[in-house]
Amino acid sequence: MRLTLTSLAVSTALIATGATAQTPNRADLAKVVASRHDTTVKALQAWIALPTIAAEKRNVAEGADYMRRLALDAGFQKARVVPSGGVPGVFATLDAGAPVTLGIYFMYDVKQFDPAEWSSPPLEGRLVDRPGEGQVIMGRGAVNQKGPQMAFLAALQALKASGRKLPVNLVLVAEGEEEIASPNFPAVVADPEVAAALKKTVGVFIPTTTQDSNGQAGITLGAKGAVEFQLIVGGETSDKYPKLDVHSSNHARIESPAWRLVKALDSLVADDGHTPAIDGFRDNVKPLTARQKELIAQRVAATNEAEVKRTLGIGKWIGDEDYQTSSERFLGQPTVNIQGLVSGYTGVGGKTVLPGRAEAKLEFRLVPDMTRQEVETKLRAHLAKRGFDDVKVVVSGGYGPNQTDENSPFIQAQKKVFERAGIAYTLTPRNAGSWPGVVFNGAPLNLPTGQFGIGRGNGAHAPNEWFLIRSANPKVAGIDEAAMLYVDYLYEVAKLGRR
Amino acid sequence: MRLTLTSLAVSTALIATGATAQTPNRADLAKVVASRHDTTVKALQAWIALPTIAAEKRNVAEGADYMRRLALDAGFQKARVVPSGGVPGVFATLDAGAPVTLGIYFMYDVKQFDPAEWSSPPLEGRLVDRPGEGQVIMGRGAVNQKGPQMAFLAALQALKASGRKLPVNLVLVAEGEEEIASPNFPAVVADPEVAAALKKTVGVFIPTTTQDSNGQAGITLGAKGAVEFQLIVGGETSDKYPKLDVHSSNHARIESPAWRLVKALDSLVADDGHTPAIDGFRDNVKPLTARQKELIAQRVAATNEAEVKRTLGIGKWIGDEDYQTSSERFLGQPTVNIQGLVSGYTGVGGKTVLPGRAEAKLEFRLVPDMTRQEVETKLRAHLAKRGFDDVKVVVSGGYGPNQTDENSPFIQAQKKVFERAGIAYTLTPRNAGSWPGVVFNGAPLNLPTGQFGIGRGNGAHAPNEWFLIRSANPKVAGIDEAAMLYVDYLYEVAKLGRR
Repeated sequence: MRLTLTSLAVSTALIATGATAQTPNRADLAKVVASRHDTTVKALQAWIALPTIAAEKRNVAEGADYMRRLALDAGFQKARVVPSGGVPGVFATLDAGAPVTLGIYFMYDVKQFDPAEWSSPPLEGRLVDRPGEGQVIMGRGAVNQKGPQMAFLAALQALKASGRKLPVNLVLVAEGEEEIASPNFPAVVADPEVAAALKKTVGVFIPTTTQDSNGQAGITLGAKGAVEFQLIVGGETSDKYPKLDVHSSNHARIESPAWRLVKALDSLVADDGHTPAIDGFRDNVKPLTARQKELIAQRVAATNEAEVKRTLGIGKWIGDEDYQTSSERFLGQPTVNIQGLVSGYTGVGGKTVLPGRAEAKLEFRLVPDMTRQEVETKLRAHLAKRGFDDVKVVVSGGYGPNQTDENSPFIQAQKKVFERAGIAYTLTPRNAGSWPGVVFNGAPLNLPTGQFGIGRGNGAHAPNEWFLIRSANPKVAGIDEAAMLYVDYLYEVAKLGRR
Repeated sequence: MRLTLTSLAVSTALIATGATAQTPNRADLAKVVASRHDTTVKALQAWIALPTIAAEKRNVAEGADYMRRLALDAGFQKARVVPSGGVPGVFATLDAGAPVTLGIYFMYDVKQFDPAEWSSPPLEGRLVDRPGEGQVIMGRGAVNQKGPQMAFLAALQALKASGRKLPVNLVLVAEGEEEIASPNFPAVVADPEVAAALKKTVGVFIPTTTQDSNGQAGITLGAKGAVEFQLIVGGETSDKYPKLDVHSSNHARIESPAWRLVKALDSLVADDGHTPAIDGFRDNVKPLTARQKELIAQRVAATNEAEVKRTLGIGKWIGDEDYQTSSERFLGQPTVNIQGLVSGYTGVGGKTVLPGRAEAKLEFRLVPDMTRQEVETKLRAHLAKRGFDDVKVVVSGGYGPNQTDENSPFIQAQKKVFERAGIAYTLTPRNAGSWPGVVFNGAPLNLPTGQFGIGRGNGAHAPNEWFLIRSANPKVAGIDEAAMLYVDYLYEVAKLGRR
């Protein structure tokens, strides 16, 4: 996961003061956070040093146990590893005897990495100066998602060190397969004890960084769902195809898995190259509301279209549409995307082979009210109806979209925290990227969900991933300021019970 | 190039005696060949040690000059490097004052290789024992095509060492780009001096190995043409597409080069996944003659279909056709083959990217009377008509088919040599593989062409390529017996002038 917000200015202010925050004796707590700074950074470095990588089955048991101990150390009274069928989840509860309970989602896994591409060892978590930003920690998982999560744990540690009782109870659910599209996370959340605990929460959030270089933060009201799958054709799916690449002259008498894949793919999108053509795929697409379009228009007005295009390396949007129309597509339309194609010879120039295998890597992005199960069923039915029984469908992971009302108390609390702290923020109707919030947001829990936080970082899934530790810009949060925002948030959420 | 024959027994006999060959004092010449054995093998090793690889621009000038010197050393009076615009050709003549002139085609380039995949260094040309075969030389180019070509040069060297005048004049044309589909070879052959010299020949052959493990050799009357090309879509072809891979959520607003490639590809073959659908592609396809079908039937009767299928790793031919129908397809039908697909993420599982580039590697196989220029023009027109102006077509090489009448004196001489030596051989109407014989066989030269030789080898384009030096089976030729067959062939061709 990695979601980036583009900017829409609301207001700007220093964040460290939290002048009107509801947090009692805030300055004292801020001092505790500051005094624990080195401890917090060391804890983050230690966590980065232990990468759990689901795709590689790396540090599966170790990562889960480490997550469990991090929770216990931060004050959760109970924490246990939850078997999932894959990389396990971790479930922890902190009962403060409060009337309100807040849910938190963590991911303890990280994306694969190649140390050769990094300027410092990816597991070292080296502190380096980043011009224009300040001191950052560089390491795999720094911003996605260990840094922001450690900021939240630092908030709990500060409250614990101050001897304070938390203003809310907490339910933490962590997974170790976010980077492979959370194939087993529904099973973790379906654990009766986990589900029962979550049911009592006012909502679930994932700690994240949202600030741009001007300090503007963001609240995002939902995210598209994503389903990753592969279509495979070849000797392994039918004896019409060779088991290995053979001399290409044989295509005169032997069927080609590559052509078969092309034919199957061709049926999935319209001739325009982007409109999904899977039977019934769009049946449950909910059009954007007037309010959602208004929020998009605000965003369009506040961002520089030419710069966005330049960053993406394109000259035009689909159909050469204007920025508003294109942005509505971006957030409002489901997609069938080809992530990759691989078959036969893939080097320079050509090679005279008939491939023994062809694979397309695809992904759906889903909008409300589409569901993961629905699109998988429709895909399989679509291919079966057209006789593509020799095309193997492997769904490697995925989940549906999530959407939370901007007027829900859960979101209102986030707005209040920003507003009281004088932090500028954008309101985005939906993120075009994805995170598995639907596990909480969808049936049967139907909880509000969101991503929340301040601070900065970048390079998720890329080399030299970083997270801001000490900010050079007073409007932008380092890890301590991010931790204090979470303290403020706990006290703000506590008020929800009194509504 | 690498063409494999399947078997059709005609007769079998020892080859070394050449009992009824037309070669005068054959036994004396055979002794000279035998006495030069070590010299021949060392010359082959030295040639293998200098790989010219067109795709890598490796040893371009060195390889051409080496080829030139090999010709001069074998008795050609004149030899020069012929610029081609790419890797140069080499043109050499041996004027024996004879009434008949024979053309020879050499390729001095070899396929790429990865030493890590080899059991001995690919440039060493190590002599190793191969169980069931005998002593073989292992190295890149051993069988494709330096070994057979060295056998021919050894024949010339033996004649020279014996102080004999050759019974025919020779014209040698060599190229260094066979492995990239001979993109510049027509320019070499169009050189006025080269064309004039070739015009005087009775035909052009390429030395090759044709024997199976039982000693059965082969004559092939033609070969399909091959045109290799790539279709490329991406940021480099239109600003609709990103220049690099971007986050896949962007497909909701940005066109996908991968889908565009799928749509373009889909138009090239019918929904059955194999029938070419390019406008007018089959206009000039000449149906197989009754004689060609008869030769195919002989081949079908003499080979084990189940074993052929097993070797290819398939359970059925296209449409589950019978072996005769499928074999007629194999030799009689043109193809549009996908050699490879590559776009975006190609590793294990998925990765959330919208690719910035998509490439399909394709190849046409052509039958008489299709031409290379014709199919390229038709492909471009087909794509243009459908608006695929953002799909770049790169034709990386290719040439049309060649076909020689089995009753031509040139082929009759080959049959005679086999028959007089008592060597079993098959007659194949056409090879489904390809070699650039059309450069001689097509207009304006319209010469008979063929592949000719005995001996064995395998592993062309693969690791551990080998060529038989000393055969364990008396029915199968080693390099000395192969050389002697070429001596016999020169004397047989010399008789053509007397017809």
